[in-house]
Amino acid sequence: MFSKETYVQRRKQLMKDVKQGLVLIVGNSDVAFNYQANQYSFRQDSTFRYFFGYDIQGLVGVIDTESGEEYLFGEEVDMDDIIWTGPIPSLSERAEEIGVANSGTIKDLRNLMDKAVFSGRKVHYVPPYRAENVEFIADILHLDPKYIQAYVSVELINACVKQRSVKSAEEIIEIEKALETAYRMHTTMMHMAAKEGTFEYEIAGTMEGIALAGGGPVSFPIILTTHGEILHGHDHSLQIKKGRMIVSDAGCENPMGYCSDITRSVPVGGKFDARQRSVYQAVLDAQLLVPTLCKPNVKYSEIHLAAVEKLGEGLKALGLMKGDIKQAVKEGAMGLFMPHGLGHMMGLDVHDMENYGENYVGYDKKNVRSDQFGLASLRLGRELQEGFVITDEPGCYFIPALIDKWKSEKRCEEFINYNEVEKFKDFGGIRIEDDVLITKDSCRILGRPIPKTVSEIEDEMCK
Amino acid sequence: MFSKETYVQRRKQLMKDVKQGLVLIVGNSDVAFNYQANQYSFRQDSTFRYFFGYDIQGLVGVIDTESGEEYLFGEEVDMDDIIWTGPIPSLSERAEEIGVANSGTIKDLRNLMDKAVFSGRKVHYVPPYRAENVEFIADILHLDPKYIQAYVSVELINACVKQRSVKSAEEIIEIEKALETAYRMHTTMMHMAAKEGTFEYEIAGTMEGIALAGGGPVSFPIILTTHGEILHGHDHSLQIKKGRMIVSDAGCENPMGYCSDITRSVPVGGKFDARQRSVYQAVLDAQLLVPTLCKPNVKYSEIHLAAVEKLGEGLKALGLMKGDIKQAVKEGAMGLFMPHGLGHMMGLDVHDMENYGENYVGYDKKNVRSDQFGLASLRLGRELQEGFVITDEPGCYFIPALIDKWKSEKRCEEFINYNEVEKFKDFGGIRIEDDVLITKDSCRILGRPIPKTVSEIEDEMCK
Repeated sequence: MFSKETYVQRRKQLMKDVKQGLVLIVGNSDVAFNYQANQYSFRQDSTFRYFFGYDIQGLVGVIDTESGEEYLFGEEVDMDDIIWTGPIPSLSERAEEIGVANSGTIKDLRNLMDKAVFSGRKVHYVPPYRAENVEFIADILHLDPKYIQAYVSVELINACVKQRSVKSAEEIIEIEKALETAYRMHTTMMHMAAKEGTFEYEIAGTMEGIALAGGGPVSFPIILTTHGEILHGHDHSLQIKKGRMIVSDAGCENPMGYCSDITRSVPVGGKFDARQRSVYQAVLDAQLLVPTLCKPNVKYSEIHLAAVEKLGEGLKALGLMKGDIKQAVKEGAMGLFMPHGLGHMMGLDVHDMENYGENYVGYDKKNVRSDQFGLASLRLGRELQEGFVITDEPGCYFIPALIDKWKSEKRCEEFINYNEVEKFKDFGGIRIEDDVLITKDSCRILGRPIPKTVSEIEDEMCK
Repeated sequence: MFSKETYVQRRKQLMKDVKQGLVLIVGNSDVAFNYQANQYSFRQDSTFRYFFGYDIQGLVGVIDTESGEEYLFGEEVDMDDIIWTGPIPSLSERAEEIGVANSGTIKDLRNLMDKAVFSGRKVHYVPPYRAENVEFIADILHLDPKYIQAYVSVELINACVKQRSVKSAEEIIEIEKALETAYRMHTTMMHMAAKEGTFEYEIAGTMEGIALAGGGPVSFPIILTTHGEILHGHDHSLQIKKGRMIVSDAGCENPMGYCSDITRSVPVGGKFDARQRSVYQAVLDAQLLVPTLCKPNVKYSEIHLAAVEKLGEGLKALGLMKGDIKQAVKEGAMGLFMPHGLGHMMGLDVHDMENYGENYVGYDKKNVRSDQFGLASLRLGRELQEGFVITDEPGCYFIPALIDKWKSEKRCEEFINYNEVEKFKDFGGIRIEDDVLITKDSCRILGRPIPKTVSEIEDEMCK
């Protein structure tokens, strides 16, 4: 955990920003895997962890923004528990450790909430995303679980986003620790991908083992596929074959809960063929452009468009696109090749704070999300600020079903050479991703550099 | 998946055993990790997988035991989905693949259930263990989710237990595959434990990586601890130090979903000291006795008592116990050292079918669970049958809080040398576990032998 002062300060700021009512922050509980007593490994709720620190099941934090009182609730362990669990601190000791003055049982929490609800005070909560917590909040606040999302607090969401968007120096240190583990995950992937015939799950499993041996889970289910054009896929069942690119999108959480999120795309066998090299270079050029543009007060939606334009120029040089690329970007033609956004916030969540709602995190009143295919998938569109940690992850995919659809609709045919694109239907996809910290007047790519150029990758794979 | 015939036969047998009404078998869905779109790796419900085969989210199976009609329900994928997921089979193709004649959407399922419920037909379901499935079943059967456990079908539970308890030859093959991975997990643990200073999570994470690279998750959160006396602990935060035993209780699921569950206890550094060796040998003698007693028609509760008696004799030789050990066992004195049961069923779940309720699986009308401390924790008490796969896992622990409690109560003081036991409060614990198949007239320890004797372990660790 960070120091007591860190958590005290975070909650003090939250009180100031929310201004009135009570803030209810419900930590996570265990989730059953295949029966009640066999559980998935525990994952704490990020909001709870940010303000109350503990990576422990069954805790609830409450902040009275008017009186300034703070509470930590949970179930006390009794003597019998200690026989099975060994000695553990009491709830009041835990509260003290994070500078919280009051502690109590879940029954005490019910009493406190009843007093608030029945006296008409507002109780703020952020959107729950687990069925258990939906039920718990509904029960405790006397709401219908079906409509729990209707009563979430936009004030609380905005206050959390404001604070969590800007990473402190101590948070950056933790993110870079997670990136050090990601370095080992991806270089190991490169070594394993040099050998044809390995199964995707052998590589993905080994990478996840490296994450776990580093003290945290993967920050999301690893994408490791020779079919990178399948964007919503976590299948790892195939044997890797020469001629295919592997898209490896993987990161971990470090023991403090901070994430890394890296993508590398490498040729099975260790050598790019000419076609792979040319598409790879087009994506890499776009990816490398981004850090030259990142700085405070620039909208990430504009950097997205610049990166996509750069990719378009590369694809034009390959004969896949034609005409005025600026215009092609404007008309959404690049959505065929890159139907996703350039990046997102990262922190305690790999898509940071996504449980609050993407638009609260990535957009604001001045910057509204586009509805154009491709750009609509951009999670972060608003102006960058010092302390933001974001991902830079352009990609290029040849998705047979999407190519067929667009071609039959003659969509953007003044910009897309469908005859050439047809020849790439067996290509797969490429994505390249790094994590970037916005600094006072520019940015810094976080973590130890992971091989990224064609020659760096070929060298690493043939080690 | 197994052949179509396997699933057809299993469902046919189920129809016969349940006799009347409809059987509703709800597969699992994804569970949110830290926000809706970021999910834990999918774990299918074992009952669904046993009867309907698929390891895929959001499916529901229905069997009309009277008409013989069978159904597979789910959401159809549309063209837009295929852009993101690649080509996938239709629901009716999936149904056909497992010999199910009918398929439909979740809306169709609702109509079918409404017809059944409103015409007074019984709809059988087994106890759900995930909040999402509690809600789903409650919604679809018009029940109050609070009382969903009250209406579970004992007929269906008994029919499932009857069939799933006896493993077929093809199931044993899968379990042995999971044991081959467990071999690699535990021998790797032994190599890593030879070096002092490693963190427990580094070893546990590496073991889990081996499971994942073998194509399946761990079958339960790995227990890997130098404090084996903490029975309910999944903490991996300590650095391993000479003088401590590591208890490593870990297994995996193979790609077909079948489990392994192995425990080895090894001395940090690779050499047992005299005290460790003597306690280890006492546990091993008990563990080795079990396969000599296992055969059809013997109650596992009796084998538990025989193993515990063997352990007691060993502890008497060490001066930790005294008096008539048979009598000590009868009076429950062994609960101080081994407060858990000798073993449990294993199959598609590591504690097989535990979601149905432990007593339905491990006990029956003739064999009722004991309430004596220690024996009460035995999950499997009834008569063994050919085809059962069970675990053989005695252990010996020195639990300071439990020793203090019993000593202060003067509990079983005619059998326990508390003065000697006091000296072992810094010892920790030892457990040794293998998976055993009951054969026609004896049993077979499954899988490749994993180093288990003192000299085998020392040899493996010093490799």
